[in-house]
Amino acid sequence: MSVTYLGPSGTFTHQAAVALRPDLRVDAGAGDLVPATSAADALAAVESGAATYAVLPIDNSVNGVVVPTLDGLLLRPALSIVDSVVLPISFDAYTRDPTIEPHVVVSHPHGLAQCRTWIEARGLPTREASSTAAACRDLGPGEIGIGPRICGSLYDLHAVAEAVEDNAAAYTQFALVSAGPVPDAGPGPGAGDDGLLVGLFPDANVPGLLRRLLGVLEDRGVNMTNLVTRPVPATPGIFVFLLFLSGSFSADDVEEMRAEWAHLGASARPLGRISPLARMAARP
Amino acid sequence: MSVTYLGPSGTFTHQAAVALRPDLRVDAGAGDLVPATSAADALAAVESGAATYAVLPIDNSVNGVVVPTLDGLLLRPALSIVDSVVLPISFDAYTRDPTIEPHVVVSHPHGLAQCRTWIEARGLPTREASSTAAACRDLGPGEIGIGPRICGSLYDLHAVAEAVEDNAAAYTQFALVSAGPVPDAGPGPGAGDDGLLVGLFPDANVPGLLRRLLGVLEDRGVNMTNLVTRPVPATPGIFVFLLFLSGSFSADDVEEMRAEWAHLGASARPLGRISPLARMAARP
Repeated sequence: MSVTYLGPSGTFTHQAAVALRPDLRVDAGAGDLVPATSAADALAAVESGAATYAVLPIDNSVNGVVVPTLDGLLLRPALSIVDSVVLPISFDAYTRDPTIEPHVVVSHPHGLAQCRTWIEARGLPTREASSTAAACRDLGPGEIGIGPRICGSLYDLHAVAEAVEDNAAAYTQFALVSAGPVPDAGPGPGAGDDGLLVGLFPDANVPGLLRRLLGVLEDRGVNMTNLVTRPVPATPGIFVFLLFLSGSFSADDVEEMRAEWAHLGASARPLGRISPLARMAARP
Repeated sequence: MSVTYLGPSGTFTHQAAVALRPDLRVDAGAGDLVPATSAADALAAVESGAATYAVLPIDNSVNGVVVPTLDGLLLRPALSIVDSVVLPISFDAYTRDPTIEPHVVVSHPHGLAQCRTWIEARGLPTREASSTAAACRDLGPGEIGIGPRICGSLYDLHAVAEAVEDNAAAYTQFALVSAGPVPDAGPGPGAGDDGLLVGLFPDANVPGLLRRLLGVLEDRGVNMTNLVTRPVPATPGIFVFLLFLSGSFSADDVEEMRAEWAHLGASARPLGRISPLARMAARP
């Protein structure tokens, strides 16, 4: 059983992989927790059986949906989202040896920019690194690194301060993807927060098609929290519609909607069970 | 007259700013071409009159729409998009002195990853920099920097090779934003490629509203190339719909659609004249 995630190591996606599969160790070696260089590579590994799960970012409260993740899922009908987690994009400050007086703060330029107030309050100069994880990994004596929380355990560092960002953290939602169909909505503690992501593939570019497809939701009182349109590379003028639906859907519900959409001229494919980001981020 | 753009210097957005305002020099100093630290800062500068124009990325062929740009426009009704340009996200290889044998390739990790084949064919080791622009700016003797084309003129470098990326370049569309209403669609060389970006602000969260709003387009045979939904922070459950429409629209067309949308329960605001990315990227 192995999990691949959008790398490199020490990123928020790495942190999400550990959160979604707590049975895996943070410093797990080959075969357990493997960084991939792209969403497409991670999904291809699951498709081929080289990995059991892939962990990928799918939505962010500031930047919106993560299109390469959605496009990768659209291209691979054998895969689906089976779980998800929302993480605050929050930075901690680390040192290798808390007994040494710090003289510089190191991070990626984005990390330094987001934590300016905390850095300036300490009157320390800054140095740019190629990533927040690289800053923490390569930390020298008297250097403070700013990065995701996972860097602390991953690189065996001491936390100087937590959540040092200037503004309230943004949130990113990460999806756990595996081979097989979308699991049935079942009763359970999270059932009230269920959601469903559905891809609609139109047979042809017909005026008013989207309007009619949405009628299926209206007839059933289903609430849609996001709608994403993506071009189909091989067929100019045809767009796939990705509907983020909130609520709990049985296999029968999905089958009935699928039949109605087919009748209107679009093939529907459930891509996964995923709760809307806005609602999850608002929870305590 | 000054232009602000999403910085730092030496990025594709900087290159787009020069492409949209060729009267500005690449190395222009204070008051001409000013980098901003965020889309919100750039738009606030135009709103306050500190800058005449802002240049921001708005759409990318791989990553989709640039949400902070759209959110910034939605928050600022006094601003609109008056022009746009599409650039290939292509990397060139530079050296400071072509007479010195190169011994290392320097770039941001993303730049190095995207140009792996070219680098490996030269058998050169790599070093990571905090950005592609910083790699080119700080280039030492015998070092090859990989970055956007603008770095060549900006840092007075010699091009070793052009378009050294492994795969066909992605495309990013950049918007030129200024204060004032959306300019009228006029006859001219680009008129056939016209497009319109409209924001629809629903009065309330009513089931089926989006379906009815889209009917206004269907009645007029208007083609929509993208639809983006964004939450309204202050009002949970209410979403703004951003419609990317293709075609040429007169002020009367826009006014008629606006009246129909108002009757259905949504305020419409044209955000700018912008051609669909998919069509522009496909042009030679």
